[in-house]
Amino acid sequence: MEKLTIIKIGGKVINEVEALDAFLKKFSQLEGKKILVHGGGNIASEWQRKLGVEPKMIEGRRITDQATIEVVTMIYAGLNKQIVAKLQSLDLQALGMSGADLNLIRAYKRMNIVIDYGYVGDIEKVNDDILNSLINLQITPVICALTHDNNGQLLNTNADTIASALAASLSERFDVDLVYCFEQPGVLSDFVNKTVIPLIVKKDYEGLKTKGIINDGMIPKIDNAFDAIDAGVKHVKVCHFDKIDTIDSEHYSGTVLCQKG
Amino acid sequence: MEKLTIIKIGGKVINEVEALDAFLKKFSQLEGKKILVHGGGNIASEWQRKLGVEPKMIEGRRITDQATIEVVTMIYAGLNKQIVAKLQSLDLQALGMSGADLNLIRAYKRMNIVIDYGYVGDIEKVNDDILNSLINLQITPVICALTHDNNGQLLNTNADTIASALAASLSERFDVDLVYCFEQPGVLSDFVNKTVIPLIVKKDYEGLKTKGIINDGMIPKIDNAFDAIDAGVKHVKVCHFDKIDTIDSEHYSGTVLCQKG
Repeated sequence: MEKLTIIKIGGKVINEVEALDAFLKKFSQLEGKKILVHGGGNIASEWQRKLGVEPKMIEGRRITDQATIEVVTMIYAGLNKQIVAKLQSLDLQALGMSGADLNLIRAYKRMNIVIDYGYVGDIEKVNDDILNSLINLQITPVICALTHDNNGQLLNTNADTIASALAASLSERFDVDLVYCFEQPGVLSDFVNKTVIPLIVKKDYEGLKTKGIINDGMIPKIDNAFDAIDAGVKHVKVCHFDKIDTIDSEHYSGTVLCQKG
Repeated sequence: MEKLTIIKIGGKVINEVEALDAFLKKFSQLEGKKILVHGGGNIASEWQRKLGVEPKMIEGRRITDQATIEVVTMIYAGLNKQIVAKLQSLDLQALGMSGADLNLIRAYKRMNIVIDYGYVGDIEKVNDDILNSLINLQITPVICALTHDNNGQLLNTNADTIASALAASLSERFDVDLVYCFEQPGVLSDFVNKTVIPLIVKKDYEGLKTKGIINDGMIPKIDNAFDAIDAGVKHVKVCHFDKIDTIDSEHYSGTVLCQKG
């Protein structure tokens, strides 16, 4: 099967222009078919504060009321266009999309009787046919963390989850390499010395959580990674955004997650 | 030749949710291939003020400094996603785009030694091949008033001008019907009684300007319309956004512009 690289970025690389430019240059040089998925969390919070609205987070998830979904839509969509313009200058035929565009990702508003997350979407269906068509036209989709409910409402959906769902939906047609990039060198066993866990197989994951080695914000990310693996993606990589030029080389120094060792 | 309807909306229909919803319903029901182009001017100014920045306009054109292009990008792109989500709920396969997406509209930063307009783009090239491919896939492009310079910079370009350039670039392949929608019933000869000029042919346009019948903000719009006509578009319509269901009927009550009567 042909290879498809799906890279998700978030955090510091989004917040700092120089880091983003350096990342996008490396991304544009990656060979083969690819998709970029991005969040924009910190920028959204900054703009909410500029507009006098204090962001509300519960367990790392943004509470998305009407005012928040409007700001988040603008920030994610605007950032998406900026990324596309930069990628076009690097000769990449990029197309910025939300989950509403071409009905790419349909979601339903999260129902939770304890916490009202507001306009937060859980993914119902990825339009893998249209995504496959675009990729085969040598187009590089650049997808922001917005989905839609097919009733006219945009929903905020975690970018890690979107990347996982896209990878899962395309795993029957492509040899998918899903890569989560962030500001750490990988999944760490030791935060002080930045010691990377080079390999995590499914059967060891529960133990790493129980021992507290994998905790907090990493758990949903790794859960998303294993969701993709359970759906047929062979392996998921977690690495620093500076290192995407090494993901296919022997110099790769991040984490690899897979079903079996 | 097959028909293609290009509709540009701006002003009140963008600012008011109910007006926009009613328009989009009628737009989704228009038969045949179509493109929607939108601005978002008033909303951009509102948000600039919310962020403590007073919008600067000279001769109806926004002075677009660094802070302004960032806000304008977010507003236009965010509004674009909202429109796409609404059109998807109406079963239209909409794809929201800026001029950077798929390198759709390349522009150069306006050079003016008297007024520095900032990040304002004059159109250099429309990628009519990609637009044609999308339209033929039964996709409805929804295009916001952003172009790019192919060096990574987004530029603010007047939505009327974008609609005119798209119509011109596609006029060799399609029988293009370009429609400018706004909150007036057409080009008016009398603002008090809202008397519509039903037909304006090219040779009479100069006289209407000289007599002051067509003035102010209408002149750039009509200039854009005749630019499209000079490039091969058969006729341009100017009408109220409520009336797009009548543009092909005998009940059409707006203005028609064309080369000859």
